[in-house]
Amino acid sequence: MAVVGAGYWGPNLVRNFQATPAFRLRRLCDLDVDRARRVLGGYSTVEVCAGLDEVLADPGVHAVAIATPAGTHLPVAMAALEAGKHVLVEKPLAATYEQGRRLVEEADRRGLTLMCDHTYCYTPAVLRIRELLHSGELGELHFLDSVRINLGLVQRDIDVVWDLAPHDLSILDFVLPPGVTPVAVAAHGADGIGAGRACVAYLTLRLNTGALAHVHVNWLSPVKVRTAIFGGSKRTLVWDDLNLSQRLAVYDRGVDVASPDELGDEQRRDILVSYRSGDMVAPALTEREALRTMVEEFGRAITTGTPALTDGRSGLRVLEILQAASRSLADGGKMIELDEGHMA
Amino acid sequence: MAVVGAGYWGPNLVRNFQATPAFRLRRLCDLDVDRARRVLGGYSTVEVCAGLDEVLADPGVHAVAIATPAGTHLPVAMAALEAGKHVLVEKPLAATYEQGRRLVEEADRRGLTLMCDHTYCYTPAVLRIRELLHSGELGELHFLDSVRINLGLVQRDIDVVWDLAPHDLSILDFVLPPGVTPVAVAAHGADGIGAGRACVAYLTLRLNTGALAHVHVNWLSPVKVRTAIFGGSKRTLVWDDLNLSQRLAVYDRGVDVASPDELGDEQRRDILVSYRSGDMVAPALTEREALRTMVEEFGRAITTGTPALTDGRSGLRVLEILQAASRSLADGGKMIELDEGHMA
Amino acid sequence: MAVVGAGYWGPNLVRNFQATPAFRLRRLCDLDVDRARRVLGGYSTVEVCAGLDEVLADPGVHAVAIATPAGTHLPVAMAALEAGKHVLVEKPLAATYEQGRRLVEEADRRGLTLMCDHTYCYTPAVLRIRELLHSGELGELHFLDSVRINLGLVQRDIDVVWDLAPHDLSILDFVLPPGVTPVAVAAHGADGIGAGRACVAYLTLRLNTGALAHVHVNWLSPVKVRTAIFGGSKRTLVWDDLNLSQRLAVYDRGVDVASPDELGDEQRRDILVSYRSGDMVAPALTEREALRTMVEEFGRAITTGTPALTDGRSGLRVLEILQAASRSLADGGKMIELDEGHMA
Amino acid sequence: MAVVGAGYWGPNLVRNFQATPAFRLRRLCDLDVDRARRVLGGYSTVEVCAGLDEVLADPGVHAVAIATPAGTHLPVAMAALEAGKHVLVEKPLAATYEQGRRLVEEADRRGLTLMCDHTYCYTPAVLRIRELLHSGELGELHFLDSVRINLGLVQRDIDVVWDLAPHDLSILDFVLPPGVTPVAVAAHGADGIGAGRACVAYLTLRLNTGALAHVHVNWLSPVKVRTAIFGGSKRTLVWDDLNLSQRLAVYDRGVDVASPDELGDEQRRDILVSYRSGDMVAPALTEREALRTMVEEFGRAITTGTPALTDGRSGLRVLEILQAASRSLADGGKMIELDEGHMA
Repeated sequence: MAVVGAGYWGPNLVRNFQATPAFRLRRLCDLDVDRARRVLGGYSTVEVCAGLDEVLADPGVHAVAIATPAGTHLPVAMAALEAGKHVLVEKPLAATYEQGRRLVEEADRRGLTLMCDHTYCYTPAVLRIRELLHSGELGELHFLDSVRINLGLVQRDIDVVWDLAPHDLSILDFVLPPGVTPVAVAAHGADGIGAGRACVAYLTLRLNTGALAHVHVNWLSPVKVRTAIFGGSKRTLVWDDLNLSQRLAVYDRGVDVASPDELGDEQRRDILVSYRSGDMVAPALTEREALRTMVEEFGRAITTGTPALTDGRSGLRVLEILQAASRSLADGGKMIELDEGHMA
Repeated sequence: MAVVGAGYWGPNLVRNFQATPAFRLRRLCDLDVDRARRVLGGYSTVEVCAGLDEVLADPGVHAVAIATPAGTHLPVAMAALEAGKHVLVEKPLAATYEQGRRLVEEADRRGLTLMCDHTYCYTPAVLRIRELLHSGELGELHFLDSVRINLGLVQRDIDVVWDLAPHDLSILDFVLPPGVTPVAVAAHGADGIGAGRACVAYLTLRLNTGALAHVHVNWLSPVKVRTAIFGGSKRTLVWDDLNLSQRLAVYDRGVDVASPDELGDEQRRDILVSYRSGDMVAPALTEREALRTMVEEFGRAITTGTPALTDGRSGLRVLEILQAASRSLADGGKMIELDEGHMA
Repeated sequence: MAVVGAGYWGPNLVRNFQATPAFRLRRLCDLDVDRARRVLGGYSTVEVCAGLDEVLADPGVHAVAIATPAGTHLPVAMAALEAGKHVLVEKPLAATYEQGRRLVEEADRRGLTLMCDHTYCYTPAVLRIRELLHSGELGELHFLDSVRINLGLVQRDIDVVWDLAPHDLSILDFVLPPGVTPVAVAAHGADGIGAGRACVAYLTLRLNTGALAHVHVNWLSPVKVRTAIFGGSKRTLVWDDLNLSQRLAVYDRGVDVASPDELGDEQRRDILVSYRSGDMVAPALTEREALRTMVEEFGRAITTGTPALTDGRSGLRVLEILQAASRSLADGGKMIELDEGHMA
Repeated sequence: MAVVGAGYWGPNLVRNFQATPAFRLRRLCDLDVDRARRVLGGYSTVEVCAGLDEVLADPGVHAVAIATPAGTHLPVAMAALEAGKHVLVEKPLAATYEQGRRLVEEADRRGLTLMCDHTYCYTPAVLRIRELLHSGELGELHFLDSVRINLGLVQRDIDVVWDLAPHDLSILDFVLPPGVTPVAVAAHGADGIGAGRACVAYLTLRLNTGALAHVHVNWLSPVKVRTAIFGGSKRTLVWDDLNLSQRLAVYDRGVDVASPDELGDEQRRDILVSYRSGDMVAPALTEREALRTMVEEFGRAITTGTPALTDGRSGLRVLEILQAASRSLADGGKMIELDEGHMA
């Protein structure tokens, strides 16, 4: 296989594909071959090349991992698919929903694997969160509050929503139980520093169940925070990704309200609220690099011909929300409905 | 002076008025006299009474502190003002902006002190934040992110916005430098548990400078969080009210962007971003009960005849935002403009 | 009943005795009557007096709580016992073991309650720790590591061991299961600042089971730490008293070693170590003021005529260790055996 | 150069020597060549070999880094020195002080670089601590309290003191200003789990200034703690190595005592204590892998022919304390004097 792009993310892919027996990394491709050589270091047998054509012409390359800027995902990934290669694309899947859709359709047509590298979904923490939500242990999801703030690199071409929110939105897409989906999004943003694009933003998503999911992304925070609260009807889960010794905490603590159906008219006004004050359990998690698990899932999807857990369609669903969020940002925070019934 | 209301907040007022030499607490008034007696305990010389009339008829009572439900603030405070008493009212000032306005006008007309008990404004932390913003040490405010979440008491009569956001909004009102004010607000909320009112809510405020202030209030979080980030052009301040040993942290760390005015057309696209990575300073704060300082400020305002730091007008400004937030909540998160030019 | 001593600790006793229906506080006694008056405030019906005699002569006073300097505990408490009063003494029980012994004997002789105010033992956290150790849920105690450091008040008359370690030692005494006791203690100390007495000290206690208990007390730490780790054969408990939302954490995580008895000679060298990596549970604790529970226990002991949970004998056991620690400090850290078979 | 040993630590050396331009890694040597191959992975041009002789016979190898068990350090390092190679040895320098001394003497005799891989000394945090102590910014060191506890790998051949304390002791050796040295050590330990060696231990060191340094090392703690407090006469520094966003905190907070020389006899009893309550500053630290800096220091020492910051002699000083601590452990915690005037 080959990795295309030796910039920020490429080296991580190189390292993990090298460590995974299912793959044999043959080439690292970058327009800047010196950069590619630096990534491999002075002791590597992997070949470096500048041209995508060389990679695609190599019959020993069955799969291509793409870590180039989002604006180039469409041409690079499309060329790879057309050359019959399986494709892994760094998030976001493409620069627009429309471009992403073309990639998904092309992969479908050719029966090739198209996977989006939603790395966070493969962390032990998120895999466990998915389990807890799918199994019903948390009950029904009431609200999700996700915060991802840091002193981040202000990007040249994209705002903070397109830079950071794909993480939160792909996690949301990954962990929601079947049948639960976002139906609308509103976004507010600020460009404190005159960067010409939002550096701080808040997304509010409505789910079809009436629940609310809220995302705070921020490039200007001197403190790094990466937390998410999943408020469930039975239990509430707090994920603090920077608390290495206790990333997940499941609280049997909450507020219960007697069902309105059980109450007479009089009582409806005097709602019956009770409080649970139970223990907190911090489940033991294995320590495993997410990217390693992601790379293995790519291998599994290719071998079995079944969709990856974060396939092109999941990448597309994330793009749809990002695009709607951008429209909302431009429209003063208006709530934008997400289309239903389309292919994704 | 007298305290009216011996419920949740009243006992705190009783304790602090007793500890302040400027006041002599004569009466604690509550419809439930047994409750009032329990508050005073078995060793007190303070008198208990059930009727407001008794209090207002007592010529030894010059000032009244009101800690009754918000819905009763108008009649109780109005009666007190009409009886010539100075008045302190628990937040929010009144149940509606209109009611609050009538109290402010009445106090003005009679030359009496009307103060709103925005307790948080009198914490050593918030007093210092005010200083840092007013003195320009943080530079211009770019964004404010305030989080106040907890497993809170679900209120019967008000939603989480009216219950908790007055704290954040009164702090915002208190610390903003002169000339900087909110001009619009949008609110999203969810009633996860079927309580019939929002239990989780997000407020987004636009300031006249273009900056954004965001408030997250939540009754359903099993973990308690009380933090605020004040992003300034020079420094960024993080307030973590639950970190007792380090409530404030001032970071000389951030992102700088070359002013667009200094750049040619070409350069405007390639913005010049640089990063500061300086030290963090956690200023030493004195430990002092906020309520004690608040009570002393009430005394100062009465004695000098000058407005309290959190006078009726500040209570009114908070009410205006709360009311607009409620409209936005009802209207799917629409951004609601705050009126200008009115009395407050 | 009466409280003697209106200094640092007395006001806390006054407040809690007033809040406990089982007691009727009649007098607050202090040589400095103005100080006593300030403690009661301007609204109290409790009487102030300067002389102990007055208190002891009052037939309405059945019990006396003593919060005077340790050096005065013997005469004050002895006079109270001789006057037939039940006695509660602030920690430490007395200035020396010998003095403490005389108080215990006098109380025994007269059939009066003598209790030591080991406040920490009555916190919900320590009560739960006791339960976990007594019930066997943690297994056998392997080690205890207790840290109590802060920027503390350097005392005039006592070193940091006598000031702070009584807390840790009384907790140890309180939570150890029956039959498990300290048998020796070594202490190292330093007087960094030239105060003339140890301001930093480390105590190492050997238990009769071979386990180790270690205590770090320190007046010179700018950060406040109050943690204890109870390493058990089945589970390990971490108590962080400043982590308000999660004071206790029980880890099902540890190292297991195959019993030497099960192994042949060969294997004994190659010990079989395995690691458990289970969940952590943070038990829900009620929030209750420890001093209130302590005061109620004093009431219970008086009423039933049975020893308080922290009776004079427990105060005596703590004094014995303190005295041995002082000898060790003076003797360069020599391990000092604790006497067996004596009255406590 | 060559790395000998592909076990736990070797891979880290391999990675860092490969990344440092000053070195050309030619060989990785391990008795288990499969393990060595796995370390290099399937894409490396570095040669693998089983025999040390091969490595030492290679004239292209000028330096050898040794990451084998401590018991083999003497023969392996001695052979390398005798073959004229510069030597880097993983901590501890050797299995005994005597063995370490022979290595230091041999390197001296041959004019070769002998360096001990005290990795922690090269972290940005410890380099800064050294600066703060050497420059006098903290004032005179009053006490050091170091805690290094975790659920650690119980070692087969060494106890927790020899496994973990070399870190703390090498840091102590590294940061103490010239002229300040440990003069005695006492150690207490417990083998809670029947492992046949201490799994929990406490070391108390006396410095020649009268200050105290205390080290807590522990394999049985389910929570990981890595903190050190450096109490100085002017400021106190707290190092929390697991607090990634704020590893160092310098407190201008402390206790001052009037010098006894300034006081009359009367006053000496009533010491004058005052408290400073200043700000805390958390200095910005660069993020850099310590091992990378260590490897560069090895290169610098070889090139310049001057001793490395953590040369063989520093490794020897650490061994002396470890050996004395072992004697103290065996002797019930007796304080053991460290010899003066010997070569180190």
